[in-house]
This record gives sequence, structure tokens and C-alpha cells, in this order.
Amino acid sequence: MSAPRAVVLVSGGLDSATTLAIARADGRDCFALSVDYGQRHRVELDAARRIAAMQGVIEHRILRIDLGGIGGSALTDPSIAVPERPAAGIPVTYVPARNTVFLALALAWAEVLGAAEIYVGVNAVDYSGYPDCRPEYLAAFGALARLATKAGVEGRPLAIRAPLVLMSKADIIRRGASLGVDFRLTVSCYQPDEAGAACGRCESCRLRRGGFEAAGIADPTRYHGAA
Amino acid sequence: MSAPRAVVLVSGGLDSATTLAIARADGRDCFALSVDYGQRHRVELDAARRIAAMQGVIEHRILRIDLGGIGGSALTDPSIAVPERPAAGIPVTYVPARNTVFLALALAWAEVLGAAEIYVGVNAVDYSGYPDCRPEYLAAFGALARLATKAGVEGRPLAIRAPLVLMSKADIIRRGASLGVDFRLTVSCYQPDEAGAACGRCESCRLRRGGFEAAGIADPTRYHGAA
Repeated sequence: MSAPRAVVLVSGGLDSATTLAIARADGRDCFALSVDYGQRHRVELDAARRIAAMQGVIEHRILRIDLGGIGGSALTDPSIAVPERPAAGIPVTYVPARNTVFLALALAWAEVLGAAEIYVGVNAVDYSGYPDCRPEYLAAFGALARLATKAGVEGRPLAIRAPLVLMSKADIIRRGASLGVDFRLTVSCYQPDEAGAACGRCESCRLRRGGFEAAGIADPTRYHGAA
Repeated sequence: MSAPRAVVLVSGGLDSATTLAIARADGRDCFALSVDYGQRHRVELDAARRIAAMQGVIEHRILRIDLGGIGGSALTDPSIAVPERPAAGIPVTYVPARNTVFLALALAWAEVLGAAEIYVGVNAVDYSGYPDCRPEYLAAFGALARLATKAGVEGRPLAIRAPLVLMSKADIIRRGASLGVDFRLTVSCYQPDEAGAACGRCESCRLRRGGFEAAGIADPTRYHGAA
């Protein structure tokens, strides 16, 4: 008998690598989905490939979609600078409706695979400025998924699993470390260099570095420049 | 003062052409969005271009995304035949999570544009076999949109408008005709030839032809073959 199937969204970052490790530890047959959405730096997708391969997924697909053509974020639009200090409100690194697009694609693949779960590494604690990382958003997507799919209509609803949603960065790092995640493979930086080394200055780098410190685990991240 | 902005999903079919005409009649500045999702026939996208141009949209964007890479539907997978007779249950022409993916993309663009509405031509009467065409599905997407976006969080929720959802095909045709929609520009067929002529035999052709008959309006569709 085969294990239950799950689609896992894998971005190349620390959070999704840990989420994939949790899905594996939950005994799921994992199908990793990454989205090439016109992000400025392709090193994220290279990281996603290495993470998926290392963790023994059944299959890894990378879907291309040009969200950069829609614009509106410092992560896809080169004319918007990546900030190095936190600002009030929703940050410019927010990509409009990104998680909704990603979860919709995961839903499509889950339906084709007959998977009963989608695992996603969203986190509401450190990134509370992003509306689509909150528990109430995930609950609304779960409700949508039950109505949106053939499986749901036929009585096999699809569950959205976000095991990190209420964890601190330090807790995520401790959990990932306990599951053997190789954090050297992951990229969190909003502006890495071409070799994947992190800037050490953007908000994502600050959160990551702070998380390793708080977890009492040595930070294996390669930094470039004066950071 | 400029008119309120709306994103309108335009597929190239009769329903979305009528929906766009309704949004224009509602006084909206319309931004047409089409999705190149690996559908077998590109004549739909050519039709979408002509419809958007004829109806004076502010801008028309075509986003590419390879749903064919996910498979599972006769509309994107050449190994699945398009049926010519209605079958029980959800038809093989159903593209997994298609409307969820399309609405998610529309949501992203609406957020960047500051649009307050998304118009979509889904219809629950003739296509009741598709789970993501029902009013309860649309309500769930509306609830998601309120939680998913910066605009929603800041108190400017985005509304999903589906003016056709409970109309018969004949009613849609009458409404479109009254608004001056040129139905010759639209393509409904699941297997048109390269010039855009319809087969006359697939379920979509049957519904369209029956709609013109019931509306008492001459069917301007070009048919190929023995139909």
C-alpha cells in the first residue's frame, strides 16, 4: 500500500525546506511544487531543486508564470528597491496574491494526483505584514478548496497544512535541525548574489540570522559583502 | 475623475465577451486578463484579443502558465479525447482548479491596479458539472479575496462579480446581443479548426447552438465539417 500523497510548496527557503521535512516525517509521499514567478533571483529555484532532491520527493515540478508582468513588488520589479529596514504596514516585498496563486496551482496538481493535502510553509509570526500568511487566510483557502475541486465535491476534501504558521523563526530552525534539514541548501535573502550568498542586510536575512541566534544553532549561511 | 477599475477575465468565449460588455455598461474602466494555460487551441486567445480590442478595454494582458504540465483535462492533455456526448458527473473537459488559478491571477492584477472588482463569466446553469462555477464557490473566493489582499486588510475589499452565474445560455445571448457583442468574434468550441471554425458536435458547441435557437437569434458561428 502506498503512503498518502501530499503536494508541498517548496520555495528554496528555510521555511519550506522544514515544511517538506515535516511532511516526510508525517509519512507522506511528497510531490514538490515550485513556482518560477519572475522572481529577481533564480538561485531560489536552484535551492528548491537541491532541497527536493535531498529530501527524496517522488517528483518535483517547477511551473513558470510571469507575475513580474503584473508588477507591484520589490521581489519581481527591478524598479522597486528591496528595503534594508523594516517599515510600517505591508512591506514592498509583498507579491500581490502570491500565496493565493501558489495554493491554486498546488490545488490543481493535488487534484490530478489524488493528493489529500497541500503543505505550505507560511508563517504569521515573523511575516505578519503579509495578509496571505495569516491563519484566517489559510482557513478561507481551505474552505475554497472544499468547494473548488472535484475531490471536494465527491466527498474527499483537500486539507491545507501550514505546520509553521504560529512558530517563531527559532522554533522553525530547531524543528528543521531535528529533522535533519541541511540549511546550507536554503536561500532566504531577498538579494543574494549569483552564487547564492546572502546580503545579510535585508529583512529576510535579519530574521534568519536572528532565528539561528535565538535557537542557539550555528548559522551556516554564506554571506557576501560587508554584512 | 476616472471610472472605477475592474479586471475582467476574457477567455475568447461568448460568456466572457458578454461579461466584458456588462462591465463596460456598468461604467467600469476595464482591464482584460486572459490566461494562456496550455489549452490545445490558440484560436481562443486570438478571439480574446479581438474581443478586448473591440470593446475598448484600457489594457489587455495575456499571462502564460503551463497548466498542461499538470494535466488531468481533455482541454490541455492531447491524450484525453474531447467527448461529443454529455456524461454523468464532472466532465473530462474540467481543467483542475482552473477558475481558482484564473481568479488568483486576476486578484493579483486587481491589487496592483487598485481595482475594486473582478468580473468573471462563470455560469452554473449550463456547466453545473464544474465545481468551480457554482455560486457557493464564488462566495468562498470572495471571502478569500477579502483576507488575501493588502486592499482587503486596509478596508477596501475586492468584490467578485459573476453576472451570468444564474443565467441560461439563451439569456446570456440575449443580454450580449442587447449590448452589441459581436458573437462572430467569440469561440466556444472545444476543438475548433485552425481558422477558428467550430466542430458543432462537442458539448460546448451544442450548448451554444441551443442557446441561439432558444434566444431566437440567428447563430453567426462558422462551423467546419459535417455539423
